[in-house]
Amino acid sequence: MYKVAIIGDGYTAVELLRLISGHDQMQVEYVLSLENIGREFAHIYPQLLGYSDIVCSPSDINILKGNCDAAFLALPHGQSVPIAKQLLEWGIKCVDLGADFRLKDVKVYEEYYHIEHQAQDLLARAVYGIPELYRDQILKTDLVANPGCYPTGAIVPLAPLLEAGLIKTDYIIIDSKSGVTGAGRELRASSHFCEVHNGIRAYGIGTHRHGPEIAQELGFCAGMEVGMRFTPHLVPMSRGILSTIYVNLNRGIRGENVRDCLREKYQDEPFVKILPDGFMPDTNWVKGSNNVHIGFQIDEHRGNMVLVSALDNLTKGASGQAIQNMNLILGIEETKGLKMPGLHP
Amino acid sequence: MYKVAIIGDGYTAVELLRLISGHDQMQVEYVLSLENIGREFAHIYPQLLGYSDIVCSPSDINILKGNCDAAFLALPHGQSVPIAKQLLEWGIKCVDLGADFRLKDVKVYEEYYHIEHQAQDLLARAVYGIPELYRDQILKTDLVANPGCYPTGAIVPLAPLLEAGLIKTDYIIIDSKSGVTGAGRELRASSHFCEVHNGIRAYGIGTHRHGPEIAQELGFCAGMEVGMRFTPHLVPMSRGILSTIYVNLNRGIRGENVRDCLREKYQDEPFVKILPDGFMPDTNWVKGSNNVHIGFQIDEHRGNMVLVSALDNLTKGASGQAIQNMNLILGIEETKGLKMPGLHP
Amino acid sequence: MYKVAIIGDGYTAVELLRLISGHDQMQVEYVLSLENIGREFAHIYPQLLGYSDIVCSPSDINILKGNCDAAFLALPHGQSVPIAKQLLEWGIKCVDLGADFRLKDVKVYEEYYHIEHQAQDLLARAVYGIPELYRDQILKTDLVANPGCYPTGAIVPLAPLLEAGLIKTDYIIIDSKSGVTGAGRELRASSHFCEVHNGIRAYGIGTHRHGPEIAQELGFCAGMEVGMRFTPHLVPMSRGILSTIYVNLNRGIRGENVRDCLREKYQDEPFVKILPDGFMPDTNWVKGSNNVHIGFQIDEHRGNMVLVSALDNLTKGASGQAIQNMNLILGIEETKGLKMPGLHP
Amino acid sequence: MYKVAIIGDGYTAVELLRLISGHDQMQVEYVLSLENIGREFAHIYPQLLGYSDIVCSPSDINILKGNCDAAFLALPHGQSVPIAKQLLEWGIKCVDLGADFRLKDVKVYEEYYHIEHQAQDLLARAVYGIPELYRDQILKTDLVANPGCYPTGAIVPLAPLLEAGLIKTDYIIIDSKSGVTGAGRELRASSHFCEVHNGIRAYGIGTHRHGPEIAQELGFCAGMEVGMRFTPHLVPMSRGILSTIYVNLNRGIRGENVRDCLREKYQDEPFVKILPDGFMPDTNWVKGSNNVHIGFQIDEHRGNMVLVSALDNLTKGASGQAIQNMNLILGIEETKGLKMPGLHP
Repeated sequence: MYKVAIIGDGYTAVELLRLISGHDQMQVEYVLSLENIGREFAHIYPQLLGYSDIVCSPSDINILKGNCDAAFLALPHGQSVPIAKQLLEWGIKCVDLGADFRLKDVKVYEEYYHIEHQAQDLLARAVYGIPELYRDQILKTDLVANPGCYPTGAIVPLAPLLEAGLIKTDYIIIDSKSGVTGAGRELRASSHFCEVHNGIRAYGIGTHRHGPEIAQELGFCAGMEVGMRFTPHLVPMSRGILSTIYVNLNRGIRGENVRDCLREKYQDEPFVKILPDGFMPDTNWVKGSNNVHIGFQIDEHRGNMVLVSALDNLTKGASGQAIQNMNLILGIEETKGLKMPGLHP
Repeated sequence: MYKVAIIGDGYTAVELLRLISGHDQMQVEYVLSLENIGREFAHIYPQLLGYSDIVCSPSDINILKGNCDAAFLALPHGQSVPIAKQLLEWGIKCVDLGADFRLKDVKVYEEYYHIEHQAQDLLARAVYGIPELYRDQILKTDLVANPGCYPTGAIVPLAPLLEAGLIKTDYIIIDSKSGVTGAGRELRASSHFCEVHNGIRAYGIGTHRHGPEIAQELGFCAGMEVGMRFTPHLVPMSRGILSTIYVNLNRGIRGENVRDCLREKYQDEPFVKILPDGFMPDTNWVKGSNNVHIGFQIDEHRGNMVLVSALDNLTKGASGQAIQNMNLILGIEETKGLKMPGLHP
Repeated sequence: MYKVAIIGDGYTAVELLRLISGHDQMQVEYVLSLENIGREFAHIYPQLLGYSDIVCSPSDINILKGNCDAAFLALPHGQSVPIAKQLLEWGIKCVDLGADFRLKDVKVYEEYYHIEHQAQDLLARAVYGIPELYRDQILKTDLVANPGCYPTGAIVPLAPLLEAGLIKTDYIIIDSKSGVTGAGRELRASSHFCEVHNGIRAYGIGTHRHGPEIAQELGFCAGMEVGMRFTPHLVPMSRGILSTIYVNLNRGIRGENVRDCLREKYQDEPFVKILPDGFMPDTNWVKGSNNVHIGFQIDEHRGNMVLVSALDNLTKGASGQAIQNMNLILGIEETKGLKMPGLHP
Repeated sequence: MYKVAIIGDGYTAVELLRLISGHDQMQVEYVLSLENIGREFAHIYPQLLGYSDIVCSPSDINILKGNCDAAFLALPHGQSVPIAKQLLEWGIKCVDLGADFRLKDVKVYEEYYHIEHQAQDLLARAVYGIPELYRDQILKTDLVANPGCYPTGAIVPLAPLLEAGLIKTDYIIIDSKSGVTGAGRELRASSHFCEVHNGIRAYGIGTHRHGPEIAQELGFCAGMEVGMRFTPHLVPMSRGILSTIYVNLNRGIRGENVRDCLREKYQDEPFVKILPDGFMPDTNWVKGSNNVHIGFQIDEHRGNMVLVSALDNLTKGASGQAIQNMNLILGIEETKGLKMPGLHP
């Protein structure tokens, strides 16, 4: 039984605890908190009553030294850097659910996050944690940069097509729609029930921090810079991200090429499902699960395509993928704790 | 054209502006604010773009002196007392949407609101603003205590039955279900979308401040103290209160007595509808309107009855009723600005 | 007082009644129904209790002859054709909320609606009912083809830019998100609460009937065929359509050109609001109103732009616009019955 | 590995498959369907893609003979009777999720379900399937009448108090609020998204079929007939039932008696949680889990109490409890397949 710590007590932390409660080789030893020290975690999140009797510890990582095999860092950006540095020195493996180790280019990080990066040496060591793309490197590292929720939904369907050179790289449009848990548990007007319920709006157009993260990874897949537009929207639902992606096909590419490329890439992946012909994803079908569903519709005549992906932003978009990564770096079977279907209806 | 001020800038304030935008004898001259001074009100609430170009004024009531006929006070409890006192001295009539003048018994007020009442002399002058019950007094006063949202939904259906002595007074149960606007625009965990959406819960059992307000008014109707239980619930919807009320009938009272009593009382009221037989209220049918819908089901055999009322907490439960009261005290036709049906679907 | 009939009894019919209940020059004389003959309309839609005592008539248009000035046709496609033909012969003006007179090219109509058009001669007479674009023609006609909900949201923001030649016409992407009332009152799995709630999905990609309607109108604005992609989505909300539109700017076009073009076109329009800089539309701000809100964000460097529009699919997207058109063809002031702000929160 | 069949293909069927997909001693061999014969079950409910490749069989129970250990009957009322009779003869154990074996009094059954009961001899053999109350009998039977969703939420909190004689039996009020999955997958106006969303209403007052079921069980607990009122409400959420229960305490009963009684009864139960003092249940905390949460608030002065229970109507209110019962009758550990916390947020 591996002992892990969770540093942070927000929505991704409780999702980690939910999933790990059904994991038979991993056990949460500590939850480190700033605001809830001494409080039973299940009193903050009563869905855990009977499943966890853990009490929030103060945010002093010294208690982890020698007591944990690994840690999940579920912290606001900037805060993971010194903690990861220290934990790695103590031999504690890290999966960082924040943004601090995702962007390889420090300048981009500093431009978007308005903060100086304190441990640039770790950036090379950190592996971007989409196992379907970087499994081999993840298996060898002790520091995983768990991807953002929007990036996972955009990169998974596009990566094989870019790698195979099937689509044009100059103008990819990613129109994403997210549930409100994506904005976390913090109190702000834009998460107030009455402001969100029964309506939809776009936000952060051209400025959202997941934009450069998506661009970086699509660029790696394509082997060149990719021109893209990313527009996030807020939808009156708790969980889920639907990404509708518009791409132009390279000359001569037909529907079957796209279908074959996606099916081949993901046929053995436990968490990525290319939907049967005629189906398009619905976030309801992946809710609470670690699955990504992908559908597409091709207009061969005009040479363009719509790809649609759905995932649960808290699971495959955050904590589920973090456990998948943690399983890999601890040498546990990759799907442990993650094998449940979506909760629907 | 009467000139009015709105003191406050929360959800009841914007609802006042929405309704008054269609009122041809009343005009909002000022919105007094603490946090949004100098900001266009329609930039806080863009649904008003094109309907109001009012700019929020500082919360200094001196600007109102001589410039307004009346004011709506939409403030947290305790704050209305000194303001109402001053405005009344200047001859500015007041409708207070807060709780400061609702409870006739200062001790109850101070017990529930944890604050000393600074103008007890005004309590006798204030009329409890349910026009269907207190129209004559409202017409003669210059200070209306606009009722709470839950009390309106409980008192309107019960008042005629208590006045007529049809029901027992020792044990009335009021099980109410409210939308989230009832908790206002303030940021708190209990109004966070993700905490509210897709679930329901009870809150404030035995301690909610609308309890004594309901008890007071039911007592006035019955001419004696009434034993009651009031349980509010939070429902994942924006607006609306449904109150399910359980009463025991006095000996020999039959369904037709109840029906006749309610229909007779409210047949000429523009905003209270006793639903046709076989219909039970739905909050969707009153959304955005000033209507109260009432239905009931009687078990003659066991001598008890379920009454159900529905209203929109921001309209008949707050700002709509406030305008109804304001119309009365200004001598305007009572229904002005309020004659629209519910917005559904 | 003009007398009008409503043919149909679905959601657009009840929205017409809601709006006309506040209209002082128009009165609904008849609602023609197939399934609810003899039933009080307000018993089907109890939000109208106290606002309408109309009883549904059988669907026999002969009763309209000589008894109405005009009719709203709110019927499934194909059914309006013979009815409009007859009513026009009797001198009854028609606003058709269905699709039968929208597409000028009969072949496109027959391809998408799988039905032969029975009155092609009327197509030239029918004016496409976006008053902001076709006001002069509407004033002169007696047959208005009221636009689809998605098309209104796509065409209004794009029309001035295409007319002015500011944007490229080869690849416009329209990613639209609609509330469920857009699918009407019919019972189908895709409108079942449990299938829709708390999730989002795309549907009808490449096949939705509003695609050719949008293409037709954008083509008229551009003076040439326009290449476009239209993807509708279903969002867990009752009303509202948000359209996120991706366009490429013509060489040398800057943000100020776009801003000026849109503002100039719509500055005197009562129902189209170009939002202040820094604001992006939210469907909540237009709910229940006849307004269209438009925002945009330009990337001058890359020469592309995101336009976002919001409207209420039942109001400006259907019944509100129908009343706006009806006001025009009856010679009533265009905004009568339509001057309320959105209902929010 | 036990082989089971599911007869029916609605929401309780898919919930059974979801839960059994994580059960390591039970396997679904057949799903019998009327409307989806030959269709992959995961194509009806794509959340199961990758978790089940079962294809719907025709509704001919002969294929089950000799091929199954047990069956879940998830059918409309009346249809289970002949099927259960036949399966039991073949030695196939049955858990019936319908209503056919719940009511011990055939006259009450026939009055409420308008159907003649075809196998009254089985009624004595059927055990009402709340394991927390009837575990010993369930262990010995081969026919379990799985309770209705509302009854479970009402009976679990009340049973110990009635058995211990702490509360009065003449007037118990049960005000319940359910999500829409409770009405099943059938298409009806009352489950249409636009009719339900953003509103709340009461329904079936005095006529709902779960009323006599609750009365029967409360009567068994009390050892006498119990006077009760049961009012169900429809809430705009997918899953969950909150029951707010009003009872009068017997003379001299104090809060600690109630607390002790409930805690003692349920302290070793895996699925019933008496919440810590100060907490009241929220359906969000039990969503997707087999848990019942119970809270209460006592007014010792007036001698009455409010009890609140929350459960997921599809899990503890239907399929989860059915698996719990099935585990018992098959001799499997009772909690197998059911040990996950609620999915929230």
